[in-house]
Amino acid sequence: MGENGIQATSEKRDSKIVMQKSSVDEFSHLALDIGGSLIKLVYLSSNNNCAADDEEGKSPPKEDLGVPNDDINCPVLGGKLHFAKFETTKINDCLEFILSKQLHRHGNWHQEAVFNDKNIIKATGGGAYKFADLFKEKLGVNLDKVDEMNCLVAGSNFLLKAVHPEAFSYMDGKEEDVQIDHNDLYPYLLVNIGSGVSMIKVDGNGKFERVSGTSVGGGTFWGLGRLLTKCKSFDELLELSHCGNNRVIDMLVGDIYGGMDYSKIGLTSTTIACSFGKAISENKELEDYRPEDISRSLLRMISNNIGQISYLNALRFGLKRIFFGGFFIRGHAYTMDTIAVAVNFWSKGEAKAMFLRHEGFLGALGAFVSYENHGLDDLKAN
Amino acid sequence: MGENGIQATSEKRDSKIVMQKSSVDEFSHLALDIGGSLIKLVYLSSNNNCAADDEEGKSPPKEDLGVPNDDINCPVLGGKLHFAKFETTKINDCLEFILSKQLHRHGNWHQEAVFNDKNIIKATGGGAYKFADLFKEKLGVNLDKVDEMNCLVAGSNFLLKAVHPEAFSYMDGKEEDVQIDHNDLYPYLLVNIGSGVSMIKVDGNGKFERVSGTSVGGGTFWGLGRLLTKCKSFDELLELSHCGNNRVIDMLVGDIYGGMDYSKIGLTSTTIACSFGKAISENKELEDYRPEDISRSLLRMISNNIGQISYLNALRFGLKRIFFGGFFIRGHAYTMDTIAVAVNFWSKGEAKAMFLRHEGFLGALGAFVSYENHGLDDLKAN
Repeated sequence: MGENGIQATSEKRDSKIVMQKSSVDEFSHLALDIGGSLIKLVYLSSNNNCAADDEEGKSPPKEDLGVPNDDINCPVLGGKLHFAKFETTKINDCLEFILSKQLHRHGNWHQEAVFNDKNIIKATGGGAYKFADLFKEKLGVNLDKVDEMNCLVAGSNFLLKAVHPEAFSYMDGKEEDVQIDHNDLYPYLLVNIGSGVSMIKVDGNGKFERVSGTSVGGGTFWGLGRLLTKCKSFDELLELSHCGNNRVIDMLVGDIYGGMDYSKIGLTSTTIACSFGKAISENKELEDYRPEDISRSLLRMISNNIGQISYLNALRFGLKRIFFGGFFIRGHAYTMDTIAVAVNFWSKGEAKAMFLRHEGFLGALGAFVSYENHGLDDLKAN
Repeated sequence: MGENGIQATSEKRDSKIVMQKSSVDEFSHLALDIGGSLIKLVYLSSNNNCAADDEEGKSPPKEDLGVPNDDINCPVLGGKLHFAKFETTKINDCLEFILSKQLHRHGNWHQEAVFNDKNIIKATGGGAYKFADLFKEKLGVNLDKVDEMNCLVAGSNFLLKAVHPEAFSYMDGKEEDVQIDHNDLYPYLLVNIGSGVSMIKVDGNGKFERVSGTSVGGGTFWGLGRLLTKCKSFDELLELSHCGNNRVIDMLVGDIYGGMDYSKIGLTSTTIACSFGKAISENKELEDYRPEDISRSLLRMISNNIGQISYLNALRFGLKRIFFGGFFIRGHAYTMDTIAVAVNFWSKGEAKAMFLRHEGFLGALGAFVSYENHGLDDLKAN
């Protein structure tokens, strides 16, 4: 991990780019998702390079979710999928990483790879537009822009169909694998929590509609959290929330009702009546609150809000399953628990929140599977 | 206005309580709504005391909404309704105010007033439970607790039926009176934005269900705003937002897409993609942002979120009209505009946000009209 926890590889990187022939040719098919906060990369390596690796489809350990070693073995591709991420503000680190591994060259080891133009990289997210010139200038490649929502859906469908076990539910501190019946997958609501949040009703391969969203997302957690705690990274802020107590800052029903429930409408004394409501007190300033408690209140406010809006949209379209993806989650137990509890609470147990092990890479995976003629079509059709 | 803008009367109050017989008997029927942040008071005065006042039912000027001179003439009660508010943390100021005007004595000028127990005051909100002992000790009165949701609905129905023009819509900086057809009032969604937010489906007098709510409400704006700006009061924070620019802190679609729209899904370049998303930048700390801009981003985030969740709930129950009340709004143009735009945006013009001139006093008015045998029954039945 780099100082910001966003470094893509555990190898020590020199500022001087070193290219070694032996490793250069082992990677191919880079795809990018350049979001408002993070750049996500997916690329393929040959099997030669990973003889001693995991068995097929083995899921990464939970604590590693969202970090670079969430590799997926893909025999149908004759290789292994790798994942990496960088902060968007540190795009030069990303360019250097791509150069160092020669990812923009499309390795020629893959028999089925047919490229009309080796200088094209599939890319999605707003940054595919914003940074197109930079990629052309620094790497000599053209970013082939793939629609963001298309990619999220394609990435999600790919994971749900091709990787087992990819989906899981989370409740009361317990994670449970979800068996996906490929014949009964659709429709579902895909909630992608990036900087902002997109909510997409998915009806099939390439059949979807973005039905809602909210601007209160991962970037809000990070942005507000930075201002309030002076944390240096998203991961540090998330880590802090582990040992925080939101009741120090949130106003609970019991705080208003003198310790009592408001049982008539189903609100217990511990229900949060008002996020950050105790901070209206004149007796305490920002520096009097522990960053841990602030982080926890913020995380709970945002997770709960996303869970609620997601449920209301699922209800609107009669969708029983909601899959949550995006880098905000990062396999973080408390985040998942809050989202799951919110969906359960508002739906009175009717709807279920589910999570994806490669949550943060939906867009990048979608861009990846948009490469044609390299065997992925079969895989996509499962 | 006191230093916190929450003082109830423009008279200069001495710390020593002065009782003048001439004014003492002119007030009666105090009712209270003691919330997490604010205490709201409604009480009646005799007509003798307000000969030169407004014509019947005249609405208060907009800039005065939520401040004490939003009086309502009520000929059917033979008097005038007065409104006052205090911060809940300053409950002693409130007790002193009640004592100074002898509001807890129930004036005996009103012919129809029949009280079995003169030591009872109708009260709602969590504080009716929390502070019951304090009222007994300091004023010698028992708080007769009235259900909070019941009161919100009764207060809203009372205003919509008995006060004209009470409801108005707000769009593009323009306020427009809404004519209420009493035979076509129900059902509607009542959204009360206090510290937290309650969403209530109203089907008639006393017929309602609390269908949703959110913990991200007025107390969140005030609490987070205090921590971020060091503002001394809610009103100061709201005032700051007037001259703020949320684009300094919010991440817009154009910021992610290099100035472009994401038109395929209907998001223009100026749509907020991520509230507080620009604050993730390492180049700026909290003190580098103007409090005005922070306040504006916060207000927009919370107003928009409430508008969205309200609309989704209205949609769920097929409700075309949403009335917004509660002290968060305070006749604040930008707040109303954001809420109205959110409802309009998400409903594609199908649903309409409406506001109430006595927005902050729904609960207190509901507690007030729960007094029996003083002529209000006729009024309630209109």
